[in-house]
Amino acid sequence: MTKISTNEIDIVKSEKSRINDVDFDNLVFGRTFTDHMFYCDYVDGEWQQPKIVPYQPITIEPSARVFHYGQAVFEGMKGYKDDNGDAWLFRPNDNFERINKSAARLAIPEFPKEYFFEGLTTLLNMDKAWIKKGKGNSLYIRPFVFATEPAISASPANNYRFMIICSPAKAYYTAKLRVLFAEKYSRSANGGVGFAKAAGNYAAQFYPTNLANKKGYQQIIWTDANTHEYLEEAGTMNIFFRVNDTLITAPTSDRILDGITRKSVIQVAEDHNLKVEVRPVSVKEIKEAAANGSLKEIFGAGTAAVISPIAAFEHGGDVFELPELDNSYALQIKDHILNIQHNLSEDKHGWRFKV
Amino acid sequence: MTKISTNEIDIVKSEKSRINDVDFDNLVFGRTFTDHMFYCDYVDGEWQQPKIVPYQPITIEPSARVFHYGQAVFEGMKGYKDDNGDAWLFRPNDNFERINKSAARLAIPEFPKEYFFEGLTTLLNMDKAWIKKGKGNSLYIRPFVFATEPAISASPANNYRFMIICSPAKAYYTAKLRVLFAEKYSRSANGGVGFAKAAGNYAAQFYPTNLANKKGYQQIIWTDANTHEYLEEAGTMNIFFRVNDTLITAPTSDRILDGITRKSVIQVAEDHNLKVEVRPVSVKEIKEAAANGSLKEIFGAGTAAVISPIAAFEHGGDVFELPELDNSYALQIKDHILNIQHNLSEDKHGWRFKV
Ligand SMILES: Cc1ncc(COP(=O)(O)O)c(C=O)c1O
Ligand SMILES: Cc1ncc(COP(=O)(O)O)c(C=O)c1O
Repeated sequence: MTKISTNEIDIVKSEKSRINDVDFDNLVFGRTFTDHMFYCDYVDGEWQQPKIVPYQPITIEPSARVFHYGQAVFEGMKGYKDDNGDAWLFRPNDNFERINKSAARLAIPEFPKEYFFEGLTTLLNMDKAWIKKGKGNSLYIRPFVFATEPAISASPANNYRFMIICSPAKAYYTAKLRVLFAEKYSRSANGGVGFAKAAGNYAAQFYPTNLANKKGYQQIIWTDANTHEYLEEAGTMNIFFRVNDTLITAPTSDRILDGITRKSVIQVAEDHNLKVEVRPVSVKEIKEAAANGSLKEIFGAGTAAVISPIAAFEHGGDVFELPELDNSYALQIKDHILNIQHNLSEDKHGWRFKV
Repeated sequence: MTKISTNEIDIVKSEKSRINDVDFDNLVFGRTFTDHMFYCDYVDGEWQQPKIVPYQPITIEPSARVFHYGQAVFEGMKGYKDDNGDAWLFRPNDNFERINKSAARLAIPEFPKEYFFEGLTTLLNMDKAWIKKGKGNSLYIRPFVFATEPAISASPANNYRFMIICSPAKAYYTAKLRVLFAEKYSRSANGGVGFAKAAGNYAAQFYPTNLANKKGYQQIIWTDANTHEYLEEAGTMNIFFRVNDTLITAPTSDRILDGITRKSVIQVAEDHNLKVEVRPVSVKEIKEAAANGSLKEIFGAGTAAVISPIAAFEHGGDVFELPELDNSYALQIKDHILNIQHNLSEDKHGWRFKV
């Protein structure tokens, strides 16, 4: 990786930090942003000079293609601070590779690796004070890229903007989730864009999720669009099922996001000598396992909450409540990953990245 | 429909029209915009006062949800001018209803009918000079709505902007299309958002279409994601097949857009006593019909070009060239619809709407 020097990033510092206006104990996810933002425009077939400027609104033509054709992809990653005040990222190269995989599927030009890492680390060093110490505290980092070309013909744009914005996130206790297994609506098609962090995949889930919310379920576990017989993933998390002492999760495919937390959970489970099966998971077997008591846990895995334990699920009008366990795999694995992220334990797979 | 008076629209006129800078003989689709634009913001649970202002860039937060989660839908409609200088729309109520159907599926609040029509007609009257006389000349009208709330949590936004922008379009001769029947990639899933004009549906098609372009095909005819055995629609057109003297088109579904041109083609064909079948169309039967000579025509139907004749298709490595016909249904139906649109013939179904 060719390093670009920070003096190749055009930097304008904010005159005064907004950090003292922020109540870090009462952060709402994704609403507060740090002092600076990174951006880089793609024009004339090339990524232009990267810039870091004070966080601010952008000016864009109403005909910019992102508004019309949803040509936009994003990533979600987190920064952590250890007790020495050093800041860390978790497997950032996987986010870098994934945003370009998502981009390619949406006909968006790939972003150069050196710009990504130099932009990210320079920005994080400038806004380091926004990363608070303490397990669970983090800085949510959102790289994204969208089509800016002002022309409403339905074809790939010639111009794009890549940006990174950052939002401090609290170590928050979330109640266990109640989820609905999808029976009618779907998230993605074979041969579609489900594996990409394509903007349009998310809006498509809002309406069915609203319906689930009204029935008392916070999230939907999506099933395959074709038969609705196989469990795939949640809106922003991959899903694990623990049947007796085996963890089961669906294989990734062109319909399912290749989650970094999912990969890490599988590795950590294997490091703990837990049995892990990566194979199609049917609704039927999970309902049977719930009925006969062998289903011990279901949990989601994703950057935002690392692990989200699930308390209950509904399918076909049948509601299953999951037991409270002393020996929860979800909580053990979560703790293990958090310890790596916060530089509190050995990092034998080289997942931590010092900013 | 309650009429709002134009004085309920807050209007700022442009100081000087840009119309004289425009070369109307050499318009590129979707790149030139008229002097004004309409917009209306949804804030605090309500659509606020609608506005018409000079066409200009907008200012928006980088955290606006449209950039991240693709919560955006749009419409495409056209304005025409007759020889008396009167301006007309074609079935605009269908566009109005469809944008709200699309919006509902993406958890976007519906836009009020009176705002839509008053905004549209006021804007078109202000920019009427941009609609040129002559069959085929038109003003392409783009209503769209997108999530503006500055918060990157993956849930429906609280704030939106509805806009209408307009772009003059030329009566252009387009060469017949060569198309590829999809075998691997897909446009939409059962239970998904394919029936909606959701922004993300379009970006998802760009990459597979780029691959098709490289093989010499301008467009893809999408097949069902499940088996790829049934022909559904093109990226921005519904598709008709003429086998002997029968027109066949797929039924609409949650995967296929309910096109206004498609509906009009079916009606016009029936008015001409042509046989029309609305039923699943298999790749197999179309290839067989092409091989035995009973396949006479394939054409796309959509607002942009009304009717787009197709010259050839490829599937599974087999290429079929369609014959040149003296008695093309495509051209007859196109002419019939254009005559209604331009107020050159009787409008027995009440499709024309005077601006
Ligand atoms: C659809 C989807 N599935 C799963 C995940 C989990 O992926 P990761 O663990 O990389 O955050 C995400 C995102 O964060 C997602 O958007
Ligand atoms: C996916 C899709 N199919 C078909 C059509 C044709 O619809 P209409 O005839 O209403 O323009 C369009 C859009 O214009 C479209 O976007």
